[in-house]
Amino acid sequence: MCRWIAYRGERTAFEHYVTEPEHSLVTQSLRALESTAGTNGDGFGLGWYGDHPEPGLYRETRPAWSDENLRYLCRHLHSHLFFAHVRAATGTAVTRQNCHPFACGRWLFMHNGFVGSWNRLRRKVEAMIPDALYPSRLGTTDSEAVFLAIVGAGIDKDPIGATSTVLRALCQLVNEDGLSEHLRFTSALSNGHDLYAFRFAANDHANSLYYREDGDQVIAVSEPYDKESDWIEVPPDHVLVARASRRAEIVPLLVAGSVGFEAERKRSQRVIGRI
Amino acid sequence: MCRWIAYRGERTAFEHYVTEPEHSLVTQSLRALESTAGTNGDGFGLGWYGDHPEPGLYRETRPAWSDENLRYLCRHLHSHLFFAHVRAATGTAVTRQNCHPFACGRWLFMHNGFVGSWNRLRRKVEAMIPDALYPSRLGTTDSEAVFLAIVGAGIDKDPIGATSTVLRALCQLVNEDGLSEHLRFTSALSNGHDLYAFRFAANDHANSLYYREDGDQVIAVSEPYDKESDWIEVPPDHVLVARASRRAEIVPLLVAGSVGFEAERKRSQRVIGRI
Amino acid sequence: MCRWIAYRGERTAFEHYVTEPEHSLVTQSLRALESTAGTNGDGFGLGWYGDHPEPGLYRETRPAWSDENLRYLCRHLHSHLFFAHVRAATGTAVTRQNCHPFACGRWLFMHNGFVGSWNRLRRKVEAMIPDALYPSRLGTTDSEAVFLAIVGAGIDKDPIGATSTVLRALCQLVNEDGLSEHLRFTSALSNGHDLYAFRFAANDHANSLYYREDGDQVIAVSEPYDKESDWIEVPPDHVLVARASRRAEIVPLLVAGSVGFEAERKRSQRVIGRI
Amino acid sequence: MCRWIAYRGERTAFEHYVTEPEHSLVTQSLRALESTAGTNGDGFGLGWYGDHPEPGLYRETRPAWSDENLRYLCRHLHSHLFFAHVRAATGTAVTRQNCHPFACGRWLFMHNGFVGSWNRLRRKVEAMIPDALYPSRLGTTDSEAVFLAIVGAGIDKDPIGATSTVLRALCQLVNEDGLSEHLRFTSALSNGHDLYAFRFAANDHANSLYYREDGDQVIAVSEPYDKESDWIEVPPDHVLVARASRRAEIVPLLVAGSVGFEAERKRSQRVIGRI
Repeated sequence: MCRWIAYRGERTAFEHYVTEPEHSLVTQSLRALESTAGTNGDGFGLGWYGDHPEPGLYRETRPAWSDENLRYLCRHLHSHLFFAHVRAATGTAVTRQNCHPFACGRWLFMHNGFVGSWNRLRRKVEAMIPDALYPSRLGTTDSEAVFLAIVGAGIDKDPIGATSTVLRALCQLVNEDGLSEHLRFTSALSNGHDLYAFRFAANDHANSLYYREDGDQVIAVSEPYDKESDWIEVPPDHVLVARASRRAEIVPLLVAGSVGFEAERKRSQRVIGRI
Repeated sequence: MCRWIAYRGERTAFEHYVTEPEHSLVTQSLRALESTAGTNGDGFGLGWYGDHPEPGLYRETRPAWSDENLRYLCRHLHSHLFFAHVRAATGTAVTRQNCHPFACGRWLFMHNGFVGSWNRLRRKVEAMIPDALYPSRLGTTDSEAVFLAIVGAGIDKDPIGATSTVLRALCQLVNEDGLSEHLRFTSALSNGHDLYAFRFAANDHANSLYYREDGDQVIAVSEPYDKESDWIEVPPDHVLVARASRRAEIVPLLVAGSVGFEAERKRSQRVIGRI
Repeated sequence: MCRWIAYRGERTAFEHYVTEPEHSLVTQSLRALESTAGTNGDGFGLGWYGDHPEPGLYRETRPAWSDENLRYLCRHLHSHLFFAHVRAATGTAVTRQNCHPFACGRWLFMHNGFVGSWNRLRRKVEAMIPDALYPSRLGTTDSEAVFLAIVGAGIDKDPIGATSTVLRALCQLVNEDGLSEHLRFTSALSNGHDLYAFRFAANDHANSLYYREDGDQVIAVSEPYDKESDWIEVPPDHVLVARASRRAEIVPLLVAGSVGFEAERKRSQRVIGRI
Repeated sequence: MCRWIAYRGERTAFEHYVTEPEHSLVTQSLRALESTAGTNGDGFGLGWYGDHPEPGLYRETRPAWSDENLRYLCRHLHSHLFFAHVRAATGTAVTRQNCHPFACGRWLFMHNGFVGSWNRLRRKVEAMIPDALYPSRLGTTDSEAVFLAIVGAGIDKDPIGATSTVLRALCQLVNEDGLSEHLRFTSALSNGHDLYAFRFAANDHANSLYYREDGDQVIAVSEPYDKESDWIEVPPDHVLVARASRRAEIVPLLVAGSVGFEAERKRSQRVIGRI
């Protein structure tokens, strides 16, 4: 179980959300140790947009809580749109290249979830990455492979459509040969202007996804980082869409072929009706 | 709270005690995450004796659970006397030089504890290190400084006496100016033949110390790593002494000047009476 | 240009060959900095055989010359057959998983060379790895992919044959579409009993390979580490074979399909005639 | 021999000076490998000033040339005053805490030089750090100890005076007992507004120091990073002073008590006469 936060809004220093007491991802990550969630000590990462045409990345293998550089960078880096992620590895090595976020062109991606039986399915998922993007395959995680497949499926034209296409293919893979491998996909995606956050699962419960909106500011999180009441849960099979200078909205994620697609769709409609 | 294990006995691969399921320090360290003890993710270390006149050291800043090298080394390194330690830092940096065990000449030392108000007392503790040993001050921890002070106090002639001398000086330091800084000292010390493990505190509860004996084998631990009944608790203000080829024995650690010395001494006598 | 050494002989501590002054890989690596060869500061690794059925590995991303652990390990690790490698990366990331040697089952492999246009050919080389071995693809280097392909081509039955088969396929790849990509392959391979060292290139000069034999001891190196006269050069398109308890011999490596195969074969015959 | 660059001027991205081809510290560091200067592969660091009252720091132990984060940070971090440093260790460990620059309050410091016989003199130099600053002693280098001594000697009131005071005390130390230990001190110091760069040595040649001025921009370097003709050498026993919004000037550094003070003073007068 990884934890992440995606911020869009006024240009701000990362420290308020990533490293400062009480309201930070690092603090939450440490608190998580004492609860049910296990540690997030297998590396971490920051991704952000600035003046440079490509996003910035800072990824480290040591635990976020003991990285002196992180404290300095979160004081000095400012952005209108940034991602932060603390990793709990699910089988792949602890290398910088396996830490989130991942960058490709203008796009950033980070993920809490997994493709079940990755050792068996890895090759088939990697085959979904177009040749032209394969040199961008720097690590060995399921998350990076899924991201590059999404980029290759037409992310620039239609990010939600490209994601749906890839999830549909993944659903087929995990259900091949009569098996029902687990697939969890709670992720954030951005091009520096628009922020998308997905909540999806096949053959499994979907990892949580929440957001909060305040004026132009939208914060999406894998789990709420405080107990205030204004966190809104995104239902399974749905996408949070926060386009540049527009209000956030929640739209269904149509991935036909998912086992439990109909049931989840019905449940999510009931849930969304309550929000 | 660090965790450690010291082994003396038949020459064996470290893996049975350090990395293998159920009976290992690494596993215990991960289990600790889910309980009260917090994480031990701030580096780890191995120290051992072999054919070379000086002990070996392997210290790393990443968490023990994600170090691939550790698994290989624990399979292939064998010794009749080795230390393993997982660290939870108490304020000093996560560097290899701050990871336990520490080595000086033939001696190895590792520690679970701290000198209270280290920032204020550090200079005075460092002043207890003789000039000739100061080049061996590679890191910045209280533990390393205390170890080098013990080496300088005559460790080769009388390890327990040298330790008592240094603890007595530390007790004076923590009680200077009417203050009662905490001091905890649960540690292991060896010259490759004899194994010593200390349990001591001033102005505070002593961190736990247990051991188990089976023939020539003696295993001392900061905390038991299984629920079997044959762990023996070492009482506060006492030392476990396991000299080469001799049975383990528990002897009092006489550190006059410790606040609560008398009370602890009485309590420990009651406790040791129950063992 | 990486540098490596492979040792087979009396059980010995690694330090004489890896870390000690004048006769060590680390020293040579540092000396290389001052000469023409560039730095080998992109990580290093040790691989060795002991009592455990699988070989040991120690791989680190920091330069060998500043790794305190390496000095201790090379004093305390002993083996009758070990590999040591210092890396100069040729485009792939500096991670432990990309450092040599690589292990698979009982086999160890290390390499000085490259597959030209790796970004373009990578996918095709990875396709040569059988499904069953693909989970062992932990990194992203050309070297690891080629090794796993060799393992999959029947390494247990015929290591030289399996290597020839893979080199033949690589020659086809680098010559596809009328291109003549460079391919250099100077490598060492062992199962813990037998030591093989290959020198091969297509469309390029072959990286150097030397060895020295003294009784049961055989040392193969990418470059001689001293100026003594008894280093024997292995000619291009040849293999050094040092089977357990047998004298070393040099045999031709038949890789039909290599551009320049005939010319190289003739040249190497002249060279081998002079040895 | 470390290498460093200090920039003061228009707010700019670091990449033009630190990572980009031809005109960068990283490139120069790699080129240095092929020449006489040895490698600078023992870590590196950035220090800079931004909106936050304290400067930022990014320090890493891996070689600058293989750090992916560095490339991203140098694209995205902007400052009107920043330091960059690549380290060649002179005996102390490769840890982040031993990498330059060092920060204390608003001050940044970096250094190319050393205190001779550091193991013998270390304790006496550390004694020059006031108690209140001793908790800022995070590493074990001579450079950090000298910096903290300078801070303690009244850096806020008179940075050049404080530096002279400490250098005078160091000269006494290196000349104690009739010895003539080497002392080299080519360093940069800033409070975020003013930039100072010192060139000094006792019993030794002074490491080089150059600068270039263009309008409000002042760049000071340990060695020129291109062959253009407008680099001005700062003579030994002199300081480059570039106060906020003022032209750079070179002033003598008066450190009475230095052996060779008179000779150096005369030589430097001749040199400065030629500039």
